[in-house]
Amino acid sequence: MQADFSSWAAAHQSRFEQVLQALLPPAGLAPQRLHGAMRYAVLDGGKRVRPLLAFAAGELCGADISRLNIAAAAVELIHAYSLVHDDMPCMDDDVLRRGKPTCHVQYDEATALLVGDSLQTLAFQLLAEHRLSDDAARQLAMVRLLAVASGSRGMAGGQAIDLDSVGKALSLPELENMHIHKTGALIRAAVLWGAQCGSVSEVHLDRLDHFGKCVGLAFQVVDDVLDSEADTATLGKTAGKDADHDKPTYVTLLGVQAARDMAKRLHADALDSLQEFGAGARRLRELADFIVLRKF
Amino acid sequence: MQADFSSWAAAHQSRFEQVLQALLPPAGLAPQRLHGAMRYAVLDGGKRVRPLLAFAAGELCGADISRLNIAAAAVELIHAYSLVHDDMPCMDDDVLRRGKPTCHVQYDEATALLVGDSLQTLAFQLLAEHRLSDDAARQLAMVRLLAVASGSRGMAGGQAIDLDSVGKALSLPELENMHIHKTGALIRAAVLWGAQCGSVSEVHLDRLDHFGKCVGLAFQVVDDVLDSEADTATLGKTAGKDADHDKPTYVTLLGVQAARDMAKRLHADALDSLQEFGAGARRLRELADFIVLRKF
Repeated sequence: MQADFSSWAAAHQSRFEQVLQALLPPAGLAPQRLHGAMRYAVLDGGKRVRPLLAFAAGELCGADISRLNIAAAAVELIHAYSLVHDDMPCMDDDVLRRGKPTCHVQYDEATALLVGDSLQTLAFQLLAEHRLSDDAARQLAMVRLLAVASGSRGMAGGQAIDLDSVGKALSLPELENMHIHKTGALIRAAVLWGAQCGSVSEVHLDRLDHFGKCVGLAFQVVDDVLDSEADTATLGKTAGKDADHDKPTYVTLLGVQAARDMAKRLHADALDSLQEFGAGARRLRELADFIVLRKF
Repeated sequence: MQADFSSWAAAHQSRFEQVLQALLPPAGLAPQRLHGAMRYAVLDGGKRVRPLLAFAAGELCGADISRLNIAAAAVELIHAYSLVHDDMPCMDDDVLRRGKPTCHVQYDEATALLVGDSLQTLAFQLLAEHRLSDDAARQLAMVRLLAVASGSRGMAGGQAIDLDSVGKALSLPELENMHIHKTGALIRAAVLWGAQCGSVSEVHLDRLDHFGKCVGLAFQVVDDVLDSEADTATLGKTAGKDADHDKPTYVTLLGVQAARDMAKRLHADALDSLQEFGAGARRLRELADFIVLRKF
């Protein structure tokens, strides 16, 4: 089953890379430096966790793959834009991402700023120019979902809370609130989007939303554990940064063992929310395993 | 007529300020620093030229004012986000905007980065959650228009060309290409959006597009002339910056008099493209006058 999951994920990752290649502006198109930098920031990197979640939820709900490709690309572009801006000197000031120099290091800060801006715009452009639902009004609702998940009351808001939290002693609920916004909102949106590209009842959508919430939070807890233990080469990004920056993490708040236990509880809760879906939810279950059990 | 136009513009500006107040997240809503900074960057400032163009085009085409408010707000939020990011140290490094400290000066760079990001997201959120057209598919096409106008092949692309042009001797067509993207695309979108919130034929839309193109370019030429002549207090932003930064402008390329002449030709061309609209296009004509003749 594990080998089978790996093949499934690798096939999607490989196909999705081609999808992104085709959807991004060509490197030869003016302004070339900007377009080259956009491609640098998005292509050839990342585990594509959000797209895989969208594909798995979409397969469960009978979604058309061409629609899933666009939905997954939009979510991944939003994610990529947030990484480019996060890595900038005025934010996390990081030099390494996915084993490569960060965008502002490889190019320059002004270009990185415009890359992030343009990737966000491109995400919304894709959603407006490709048909994701037979019902255009429903598609507008999906666009709204992504906007809310990524804006000041979602991902960007989580980063603002993160900035405010440096050097502060957050409580566990405060840390959770930050991560539910910062990483959780977009992961939930990826699952919901995948499902909505197909056919899904409101009740099932609620279960999938809970699954996405648990997986999103587990993802962050595991990230904190890995960050506290791994070295930079294994991680592909600078290790131990959050603790160095005096940022609260699940590990600094709970200790490594309690953080691992928390990830396991979230994992169980995520699987529990898929119970009524039967065999069709197999890839979602495997993704939950993958996210929580990697490197443990 | 001039007094009448001033009343018309003032009434729209005043009402639109309330619209923006209501559409922006409340300052008391968490994350409060981010939401406060978003309001700081948008409210109480600017001539609202793009919204006025949308209102004027909308009035010409019988658009509902509640739809125009949303369309104008989305365009203005995109404009405001671009100003916040443009002013940052890695871009134009400016400290004064609309007579107030720029966002990163008043708050900090990281907050300004997130403010710009979140204002862009909010623009697309508004377009997805409010009804702008009876036909949802047409509304998606309008969303696409804004995305194209503001992304790497529009406004952000123009800024990338601008960055690349520092210290270079651009030709007039190259300078024009930069401005058609950097400021022109969004101004054209404002006009087209206003019209599309109402009822308009493809032929008329083409005429309005040409009007927007001329006005957008004239706007930039006039800006260059004012920038070369005015002092900082009158301008409400740092004067003479572009020439100081060794950036090509219409004035450095043509000289002041030829730049003025160019603005006048564009003005005449803009008015010419409105000929077949009759009295209904009065406000658009007055806006063209306002944009080109201000401070001359």
